[in-house]
Amino acid sequence: MEGYRSFLFFLVSSLLFGFLAVIFVLVWVLHWREGLGWDGGSAEFNWHPVLVITGFVFIEGIAIMVYRLPWTWRCSKLLMKYIHAGLHLVAIVLVIVSLIAVFDFHNSAHIPNMYSLHSWVGLTVVILFTLQIVISIVVYLLPFAPDSLRVALMPIHVYSGLLLYGSVIATCLMGITEKLIFALKNPPYSKFPPEAIFVNTMGLLIVVFGALVIWMTTRPEWKRPPSHAVKALQPYDTEDTVIAADDKPDVELNSEAARKRNLKLDDAGQRSTM
Amino acid sequence: MEGYRSFLFFLVSSLLFGFLAVIFVLVWVLHWREGLGWDGGSAEFNWHPVLVITGFVFIEGIAIMVYRLPWTWRCSKLLMKYIHAGLHLVAIVLVIVSLIAVFDFHNSAHIPNMYSLHSWVGLTVVILFTLQIVISIVVYLLPFAPDSLRVALMPIHVYSGLLLYGSVIATCLMGITEKLIFALKNPPYSKFPPEAIFVNTMGLLIVVFGALVIWMTTRPEWKRPPSHAVKALQPYDTEDTVIAADDKPDVELNSEAARKRNLKLDDAGQRSTM
Repeated sequence: MEGYRSFLFFLVSSLLFGFLAVIFVLVWVLHWREGLGWDGGSAEFNWHPVLVITGFVFIEGIAIMVYRLPWTWRCSKLLMKYIHAGLHLVAIVLVIVSLIAVFDFHNSAHIPNMYSLHSWVGLTVVILFTLQIVISIVVYLLPFAPDSLRVALMPIHVYSGLLLYGSVIATCLMGITEKLIFALKNPPYSKFPPEAIFVNTMGLLIVVFGALVIWMTTRPEWKRPPSHAVKALQPYDTEDTVIAADDKPDVELNSEAARKRNLKLDDAGQRSTM
Repeated sequence: MEGYRSFLFFLVSSLLFGFLAVIFVLVWVLHWREGLGWDGGSAEFNWHPVLVITGFVFIEGIAIMVYRLPWTWRCSKLLMKYIHAGLHLVAIVLVIVSLIAVFDFHNSAHIPNMYSLHSWVGLTVVILFTLQIVISIVVYLLPFAPDSLRVALMPIHVYSGLLLYGSVIATCLMGITEKLIFALKNPPYSKFPPEAIFVNTMGLLIVVFGALVIWMTTRPEWKRPPSHAVKALQPYDTEDTVIAADDKPDVELNSEAARKRNLKLDDAGQRSTM
């Protein structure tokens, strides 16, 4: 891998920032707020930031960059697709639970739902993210879609994935802003209480984590190499080396046309740089 | 240009959404708020959203995608650099005036500055954006930087430009959230007054505009072609065809090594896809 040490630096930094963001949100709700519970009150609401930051920021960030980890390049494309899709599914399940928590809290406290820009952007992102998962499973994981469709949709898959991820982070920042204005009363947000400084810092951690994920994902030199290059590293198949739906037999690699075609298919199957 | 009609569709759509966002913010402050003025009161504050959305969202969006306009491909690279840099400078001047307005308003009304996450992220973005402009002028516009430095810094230039642009939009969304919570009292934000729905819609317009700008800027098929390809379209120099600092004489194009070198330099000089 070109620039392996630089990649490691960014990977460790991003994991540190992401992990710190998760720790911060837990400390926030457990130390400064009402803790966690499922009683229709504030403790139930608190699952909302905890699950969104854990699922939609941290786990989703790892799902986005999982193809970049060079230690996975000897694993089959299909296995990596399952891991990529699996992490997205874990993220969306956590987010759906977090939405149930916040709607339940609002309904118990007679607070209207869906009036804020945070809720408008947030729900749009969740719906589009779910749509992205369903379309991607049908097109890239199940063996039915023709190669031409996979190739044609890949730029949209990558762009919409990163756009939705950026929108998730923007939605978190709006949510933090709302919550601090509503929750901090004595002293208020504007008087710089320690909780405000702590949670603002959590917002910055989320932004830096997202920026690092997007940097790593959009570096062409850190892409997973095409599968024939991986196979050259791995002369004997292992149990993991399942032939994916869009993997072609090695015999095709003998011709220049087939080589170019395989490169394009690899782009469609696993490489996700904008 | 490959996909010219599709490009036109996205360009017209983006201009429509961006233009609508500017109209919306003007209608907001002139119809629902206190209008525009410079008296230390709310009318002075209102310059903040107006100038940020006009300068940092709309004009900045055009600055980012100006190299993509195929009608400019016959203009010299240096001229396009001046236009790109000039639009960024207009944007930052408007933003600095917008910051003076909000600080002035806060000081007159004895509202503390810099306590919110909106202000933390926003000021960081303005400082980094200014730094980006200064570094880019020194490296890409002035003729002193060696080619190797221009090539090495280009991925960072493009990435940080788009990241800062995304952060500008996230900051706008936080600012809208804050302002609606503070300003709407009777009826409050949560009661869905028409102003809330109008301004939430403005937030969505900003998000869609930003998404379209980033889509157009990151399509490799819509990049400005390398300068030797442009020159092939244009056999005779015009007044606009100023040789830029990193343009090489045509004679170098005769060798394969020079061709590859020029391609890389073109990437550093004008092409900005992540």
